Amino acid sequence: VEKVRPLSCNMEWSEFKLGPDGLVPVVVQDYRTDEVLMVAYMSEESFHKTIETGKMTYWSRSRQELWVKGMTSGHYQYVKELVVDCDCDTILAKVSQTGAACHTGNKSCFFHEIAKTDYKNTNPLKVFENVYKVIADRKVHPKE
Amino acid sequence: VEKVRPLSCNMEWSEFKLGPDGLVPVVVQDYRTDEVLMVAYMSEESFHKTIETGKMTYWSRSRQELWVKGMTSGHYQYVKELVVDCDCDTILAKVSQTGAACHTGNKSCFFHEIAKTDYKNTNPLKVFENVYKVIADRKVHPKE
Repeated sequence: VEKVRPLSCNMEWSEFKLGPDGLVPVVVQDYRTDEVLMVAYMSEESFHKTIETGKMTYWSRSRQELWVKGMTSGHYQYVKELVVDCDCDTILAKVSQTGAACHTGNKSCFFHEIAKTDYKNTNPLKVFENVYKVIADRKVHPKE
Repeated sequence: VEKVRPLSCNMEWSEFKLGPDGLVPVVVQDYRTDEVLMVAYMSEESFHKTIETGKMTYWSRSRQELWVKGMTSGHYQYVKELVVDCDCDTILAKVSQTGAACHTGNKSCFFHEIAKTDYKNTNPLKVFENVYKVIADRKVHPKE
């Protein structure tokens, strides 16, 4: 568990351009690998709570309630950086993710590929992670 | 200019869980560096056009019209991969970005930092890009 501390933020909620439901979408990225983990939504209350606690807090659209990510699963997201886009309608959050971001147990919620062209992943940290997975798997399932 | 070709996609538009405005948000990532470039929205028509052309096509919420990204600026986004998240309400697009994604001329639309803790960017490609920028700048503005 990381130390939790309030952030200082140089943007007010009133400066955001809100979506049709009064919320702001948040793209959540692993701060080390830049892998996109999930997209969730913030209300004014959840934005302030995120700043106050340093832990990502959202508005759950399905449950219609404040959602401190990790409160039930332990899979907290500690804020490393918040960035707003050029038209102030989207937040990019770089976080330290405890465990998995996805409720399926997958690290990222984005794992269902629907279209792909022929290319190789060149992000060195991802390449390293993939090679490491193969090595770890070979230890458990040795090849002759 | 890259070769444009239709993609094969294993997901129908009807399978998406649409947002309150009938659109699906799309997180756009540089396929080489995993940098998040922008977030935009797809309608059914723009989704099909993206699949047919291999070029990212959105629904412009401000202009309320189909928006082939790069049509006026030349800054096309060639699709490398499309991934849907676990609850089918968000698309992650990995693209080859021509020029800048942002209308300001910035590579990414996310450049206005609003909160940051003390950490170092460890994505090796970003580290390399930053070092390269310093070297290129020193060539133009030599230090004694």
